[in-house]
Amino acid sequence: MSNCIFCKIVRGELPCEKLYEDDSVLAFMDIGPIVKGHALVIPKAHHDPLTDVPTELLGKIMTVVQRIARAQRDGLGADGVNIHQANGKAAGQEVWHTHFHVIPRFANDGHSWNWRAQKYEQREEMQALAGKIRGALPS
Amino acid sequence: MSNCIFCKIVRGELPCEKLYEDDSVLAFMDIGPIVKGHALVIPKAHHDPLTDVPTELLGKIMTVVQRIARAQRDGLGADGVNIHQANGKAAGQEVWHTHFHVIPRFANDGHSWNWRAQKYEQREEMQALAGKIRGALPS
Repeated sequence: MSNCIFCKIVRGELPCEKLYEDDSVLAFMDIGPIVKGHALVIPKAHHDPLTDVPTELLGKIMTVVQRIARAQRDGLGADGVNIHQANGKAAGQEVWHTHFHVIPRFANDGHSWNWRAQKYEQREEMQALAGKIRGALPS
Repeated sequence: MSNCIFCKIVRGELPCEKLYEDDSVLAFMDIGPIVKGHALVIPKAHHDPLTDVPTELLGKIMTVVQRIARAQRDGLGADGVNIHQANGKAAGQEVWHTHFHVIPRFANDGHSWNWRAQKYEQREEMQALAGKIRGALPS
């Protein structure tokens, strides 16, 4: 897409610090890292949201996600890695071209995901939501 | 693995609110949801961390992640969806069996990821980290 910032990076119209590239996938450094060493993995073709990425391409993207995660561990000495992906403004998405964040984590790196797990007061509440999800799955 | 809580769920030794199941992948409700409707997608076989999941299996997992995300949108009316995955205690991992969180998001659902983007003061700092990652990638 002509105005997509990630498509411009793919076409070389905007710079990036490249980590990996093949025919269909590009990995590069996120210039606004949650933790330093934070990378992005994207399909070269414009797809958005994640649910619209063709199956085979998604498999290729995930293989690169694995490679980058392994290299953050081996090359940066990361103690862990987070994979994060957002679809929609409500989810925090800011660039409208599917991308996976691959974030190296270190003990005491200062980041917290604000992981506040809720509870279902009634089991029936969870079951009702599950029923709606199951009902919308292709049979 | 005998003591793995997710392996116990796969074997039916612990209950779950199931959303989807096939030969290799299981999806079920997270009982501690970040946002209600939050689901987990796991390989039935025990693999951990993500970097150790076989390529073909990871592709199958991601296809189910896509289906659940689509069903949260269509069945729950979610405005967005987050995919989140943790490897290592430093990344917030608590169950040692690879799992993808698929989290429906709604405008004003009250959740924030605490996304504090940092900056590289010097471009050379980012380039040095990128060099270490590239150096650890298989050639």
